Amino acid sequence: MLSSFKRFLIGRPLKNDEIGDQKLSKTKALAILSSDALSSVAYGPEQILIVLITISGLAMWYSVPIALCVLILLAVLILSYKQIIFAYPQGGGAYVVSKTNLGMNCGLVAGGSLLVDYILTVAVSVSAGTDAITSAFPSLQNYNVEIAVLFVILLTILNLRGVTESASILAYPVYLFVLAAFILIGAGIFNVLTGNISPELHTPIGTPVAGIGLFILLKAFASGSSALTGVEAISNAIPNFKDPAPKNAAKTLAVMGGLLAILFTGIVVLAYFYGIIPKAEATVVSQIAESIFGRNFMYFFIQGTTALILILAANTGYSAFPLLAVNLAKDKFIPRMFLARGDRLGYSNGIIVLGVASIMLILVFHAKTEHLIPLYAVGVFVPFTLSQTGMMMKWLKEKPKGWVTKFIINTTGAFISLIVTMIFFITKFTQVWSILIFLPIIVWIFYRIKKHYVAIGDQLRLTNDDLVKKIEGNVIIVPIAGMTRVVEGSLNYAKSLMPDQIIAVNVGFEKESEKAFKEEWQTWQPDVRLVTLYSQFRSVLGPLNRFIEAVERKASESNYQVTVVIPQFIPKKGWHNILHNQSGLLIRSYLLYRKNVVVATVPYHLKK
Amino acid sequence: MLSSFKRFLIGRPLKNDEIGDQKLSKTKALAILSSDALSSVAYGPEQILIVLITISGLAMWYSVPIALCVLILLAVLILSYKQIIFAYPQGGGAYVVSKTNLGMNCGLVAGGSLLVDYILTVAVSVSAGTDAITSAFPSLQNYNVEIAVLFVILLTILNLRGVTESASILAYPVYLFVLAAFILIGAGIFNVLTGNISPELHTPIGTPVAGIGLFILLKAFASGSSALTGVEAISNAIPNFKDPAPKNAAKTLAVMGGLLAILFTGIVVLAYFYGIIPKAEATVVSQIAESIFGRNFMYFFIQGTTALILILAANTGYSAFPLLAVNLAKDKFIPRMFLARGDRLGYSNGIIVLGVASIMLILVFHAKTEHLIPLYAVGVFVPFTLSQTGMMMKWLKEKPKGWVTKFIINTTGAFISLIVTMIFFITKFTQVWSILIFLPIIVWIFYRIKKHYVAIGDQLRLTNDDLVKKIEGNVIIVPIAGMTRVVEGSLNYAKSLMPDQIIAVNVGFEKESEKAFKEEWQTWQPDVRLVTLYSQFRSVLGPLNRFIEAVERKASESNYQVTVVIPQFIPKKGWHNILHNQSGLLIRSYLLYRKNVVVATVPYHLKK
Repeated sequence: MLSSFKRFLIGRPLKNDEIGDQKLSKTKALAILSSDALSSVAYGPEQILIVLITISGLAMWYSVPIALCVLILLAVLILSYKQIIFAYPQGGGAYVVSKTNLGMNCGLVAGGSLLVDYILTVAVSVSAGTDAITSAFPSLQNYNVEIAVLFVILLTILNLRGVTESASILAYPVYLFVLAAFILIGAGIFNVLTGNISPELHTPIGTPVAGIGLFILLKAFASGSSALTGVEAISNAIPNFKDPAPKNAAKTLAVMGGLLAILFTGIVVLAYFYGIIPKAEATVVSQIAESIFGRNFMYFFIQGTTALILILAANTGYSAFPLLAVNLAKDKFIPRMFLARGDRLGYSNGIIVLGVASIMLILVFHAKTEHLIPLYAVGVFVPFTLSQTGMMMKWLKEKPKGWVTKFIINTTGAFISLIVTMIFFITKFTQVWSILIFLPIIVWIFYRIKKHYVAIGDQLRLTNDDLVKKIEGNVIIVPIAGMTRVVEGSLNYAKSLMPDQIIAVNVGFEKESEKAFKEEWQTWQPDVRLVTLYSQFRSVLGPLNRFIEAVERKASESNYQVTVVIPQFIPKKGWHNILHNQSGLLIRSYLLYRKNVVVATVPYHLKK
Repeated sequence: MLSSFKRFLIGRPLKNDEIGDQKLSKTKALAILSSDALSSVAYGPEQILIVLITISGLAMWYSVPIALCVLILLAVLILSYKQIIFAYPQGGGAYVVSKTNLGMNCGLVAGGSLLVDYILTVAVSVSAGTDAITSAFPSLQNYNVEIAVLFVILLTILNLRGVTESASILAYPVYLFVLAAFILIGAGIFNVLTGNISPELHTPIGTPVAGIGLFILLKAFASGSSALTGVEAISNAIPNFKDPAPKNAAKTLAVMGGLLAILFTGIVVLAYFYGIIPKAEATVVSQIAESIFGRNFMYFFIQGTTALILILAANTGYSAFPLLAVNLAKDKFIPRMFLARGDRLGYSNGIIVLGVASIMLILVFHAKTEHLIPLYAVGVFVPFTLSQTGMMMKWLKEKPKGWVTKFIINTTGAFISLIVTMIFFITKFTQVWSILIFLPIIVWIFYRIKKHYVAIGDQLRLTNDDLVKKIEGNVIIVPIAGMTRVVEGSLNYAKSLMPDQIIAVNVGFEKESEKAFKEEWQTWQPDVRLVTLYSQFRSVLGPLNRFIEAVERKASESNYQVTVVIPQFIPKKGWHNILHNQSGLLIRSYLLYRKNVVVATVPYHLKK
C-alpha cells in the first residue's frame, strides 16, 4: 500500500538506461535553472530604491548609474561563468573550481555556503511567493506557514518525479512571467518615448543631492546585486543538459543573462521615469504596473506571474542542491547516501533533505524569511568570489591561448564580487554575522566526515600483510525463554550446524522453579547443555550478557567464534508485535553493537 | 548516560527479595489510596446544590436528606467492599469479582470501564487541581496545560520510584487536608451550636418547595454520589498492603469510610446552615471557609490543601491502574508487558501507560476536563454494580455461615449502584453516551488480544504428534558489496560453518564492471562461488530477494535450511551510522519478516 502510494506520487521507477530521456533541452533548462535569477528582478530594483530613499526623494536618479554597475557585474559574472562551464563541464561550479585551483579549504567554504544557500533560496522564495498570494487574498493570511510548507512539499514531489517532468510544468510560469515583464516594459518605454509621462515625476539625472556619500551608494549597489543570486545555477547543473552539454549550457547562460539584463534595466528605468518611491504596502513592480495599466487584467496578470515565479525560484535550489551534494559526497565530505539515484533517477536524498531543511526554516521563522535575504546574498557572493579567484589561478598556471583576456575577465569578476561581499559585511553586519559562525562549523563537519570515511576505508581495505584470523571452531549459545516449538526450531538449526557445541541459556526470576525446569529439560533435550541464570534485578539482558562475555573470552583464546542463535517468532500481523516483549530484538542489537559475537535470528512464522 | 539519568530520576534498581520493604503500612495506605475519595468532598456537596438551585433557593434544605442517602450508599459500599476484601485477598476488585461470579463478559465490562476510569481520574483530578492553583495565581492561567502535564510527569516519576516512596511524600498533604477540613467543620459546628449564625440564612428543613420533583431529587442524588468515586481503590490494591494484607486493608477502608462520611456530612450541613448558594466564581468550600474565617491564613490553608489533594487524587489512579492491568494481563486480555516489574519493583509499564494516556487526554481537552466528570462517575458505578451483583451470586452459590446478612448488604449495594447508574444515564445522557460506544470496543479488543495469545500458545506448545522437521543440511548466502575485510570476516565465518555450501551474491548497478569484478573475485576467493546480479532499478533488495527466494525454494525441497550471513561493520561512534547506508539492517528485517531464512549478522567492529 505504501509503495503504491509512493508510485502514485512520484511515478513508476525508471531503469538505469532511461537516464538520457531525463536530460534537459535548452528551453526547459532555461525555465528550470533561471527562475531564481529572473525572479530577483521582482525585488532587486526595489532594494536599490529603499537605500536611496533614506537620503531623499531627489536621490532616486542614482538608481540608473547604480543599475549600470549591477549590469556590468552581471556581464562579468556571465562571462566568467561561461568560462567555467567550458573549463569544468562535469559541473560543480564554485565548489569544484575553488577546490581545484585554491585548495580544499576554499572549496569547502564555497561548497558549504552554497549548500546552506540553496536551503535559504527555497525558504526565502517560497515565503515571498506565499506573501504575494496572501496579499491578494487576505482571508488566507493566517495560513501563510501552512501554504508555504504545502508549496515546498509540492516542489519536492515534482522534483522526485524527475528533472524533465518538473521542467515541463515549470516552463509555463517562467515564460509567462517573462512575457508579462516584456509587455510591462514595452508599454512603459512606449509611454516614455511618446512623451506620455509628466517630466515632473523624475528629477533629471545629475541633479546634485545633499548628504549622498560613497557608503550609501555602495550599500545601494550591494543591495541591487542581490538580484544576481541564482546566476551560478547553470554552471552547477551542466550534467543535466542534453549533449553537447557545455555548449548548450553556455548558450542558456547567455540567454538568461540577456533576459535578466533587459528586465532589470527595464524595471529600474521605468521606476525612474514614473518617479516610483518604495512603499511598504505595494511593491515597486506593482506600482509601475498600476501607473501604466491601472488595476485591470494586465495588472493582475503581472502580479500573478510574479508571485508564481517567486515560488518557482525555489526550484533552482532543487536543481542545484542535489548536484552539489553529489560532488561533495564523491569527495566524502557528506554522507554517501547523497550519491544514490532514486526510483526516478534523480538524486532523491538530496531533494528530500533540501525539502525537509527548508520546511524547518519556514516553520522556525513562521514564513517571515525576508530578513534572511542579506544572509542569502552573502552566501552567494562568497562562492562567486572564490570561484572567480580560482579561475584566475587556473589561467595563471595553465596559460592557454588567449589566456590574458580570460584572466582579465575573471580578475574583474573576482574583484567586484569581493567588493560586494565586503560591502555586505560593512553595511549589513547585523544581518550577516552568523555566516562567520556557521561556515567554519560546516567546514569542520565536512572534515570530520571525511576523516571518518578515510579511517573506515583504511580499516576495510584488504592488505596482504594483515590477514583476518582463521576461525578454528564455533560455539553456539541459544538463549531460551521456555520449552516451545520456537526454541525447538532454533535448537534444530544449531544442531544442524554444530551438534556438539551448543549451550542453551535460561534466565529466571524465581529460584524455586529452577530445579523443575532443569529436570524437564533433561527429558526433552538430553543432548543439549542447559545453563540457568538467576536474575535478581529482573533483567534478562544483564545476566545473559555476562554469561556470553565469559564464553566469548574463553572461546577467543583458541580462535573460536561465538554465535548467539536467537529464537524469534514472527506474528502474522504487524500489530501483534506490541503484544510481545521484543526481548529478542533487544538482545540482538545490544550484542551486535558491543560484542564480537555473530547474532543469528531463527524465525518461526506463526500461521494465525 | 541515559541509564544514569534514569537512575537519578527513579533511584537504584531493587532486588527481587526487597519487595517486602515496598509494602504499605495502614497510615501510608490510607494516604495513598484514599486521596481520590477524600478529595471528592471538595466538589461532591457542590454538585448536589448545583442541581437544587435550578428549582429555587428554598430547595437547598433538600441537600440534607440527599446527603443522608449518599451516606447510606457510602455505608453500603464500604460494607460491601469490606466483604470483597476478605473474599478476594489477591486484589482485583470489580474485575475479579465480576469475572468469577458473573462470567467473563461482565468481568471485562467492569475491568474495561475501570481501566479507562483511572485514566480519567488522573486527567480530571490533575486538571481540577491545576485550576485551583491558577485561580490563586492568575498570571499562570495561560500555562494550565503545561502545569497539568508537569504534575502528571511528576506523579509518574514518583510512582516509578516505588510505592512507599510516593506514599511518604503523599501522606503529608492528605493528612493536612483532613486536618484543615476538621478545623473548618469543627469551627462551623461550634458556631451553629453556640447560635452564632443568623437563623435567616437557612430555610427550615421540611419547608414545602414548589416545582420540586422526583427527577430533580434523583439527579441531585446521582450528582452527589460522584463524591464516592475512589471508594473501590483499596479493594484493588490489597497486595500492596503489609501482612496480614486483607485485615489491614479492611481497617484502612473503614477509616477512610468514616473520614469521608464526616467530611461529606460536615460540608453539607455547614453549607445548609450558612445558606451557601453555588457560584461560578467561588467553590462551596471556599464560601464556607470565607464565612467562618474571613480571608485570613486559615482560609488559604484550607484552599491550598484542597488544591493539593485534588492533584494527589490522581495518585489513586497510579496505585490502582497497574494492579488492575496485571490482573487483566494475567488473563491475557491486555499485552503481557504489564506483568513485568520495573527496576523499583513497581509495575512500570502500567504506570507509564497511565501517565502517557492521561497527558494525551489533558492535551486533547486543553486541561478543561470538567465535563468528563459525569462520564467518569458512570465509569465507576458500572463496576460498582457489577461487583456487588457478583457478590450476591457468590453468597447465593456458596451459602457460608451468616450469608443472609452478607447477601442483604451486597443486594442493597447492587440495587442502589444500579439505580445511580440508571439515573446518570437518564439525567445526563448527553454527557455519558460515549461509554456505550467505547466499552464494547474495549471489550472487543480484549477478546482479540486474548484470541491472539491463545493462538500463539497453541502454535508454540510442544506436542508429540507433530515434531519440528529435522534440518538435513545448510546453504549459506553472503550478500557482499565489495571486496573488503568485513566481507572477508563474514566469508571466514561461513567457511567455518559450511565450507562447501557458500554462495556470495553481489548486486551491481553497472553492467560494465561485472566482468572485472568476477575476475578479481576469482583470484581472491577461488573456493567461494560468486553470483552477480544486475539491478536495473538501483535497488539491492529486489534482485537479492528474488535470488534468495529461488535458493530457498530449492533448498526446502530437501529440507535444507538457508542462512543469510550479513557482513556488517559497526562504527565506533553512534553518529557514524548516519554516514553509512544501512542496507544490512534493511535486508535483515525484510528477510526475517517475509522469508523462512535464518539471518546471521557478522559484526566487524571498527577501531577508529
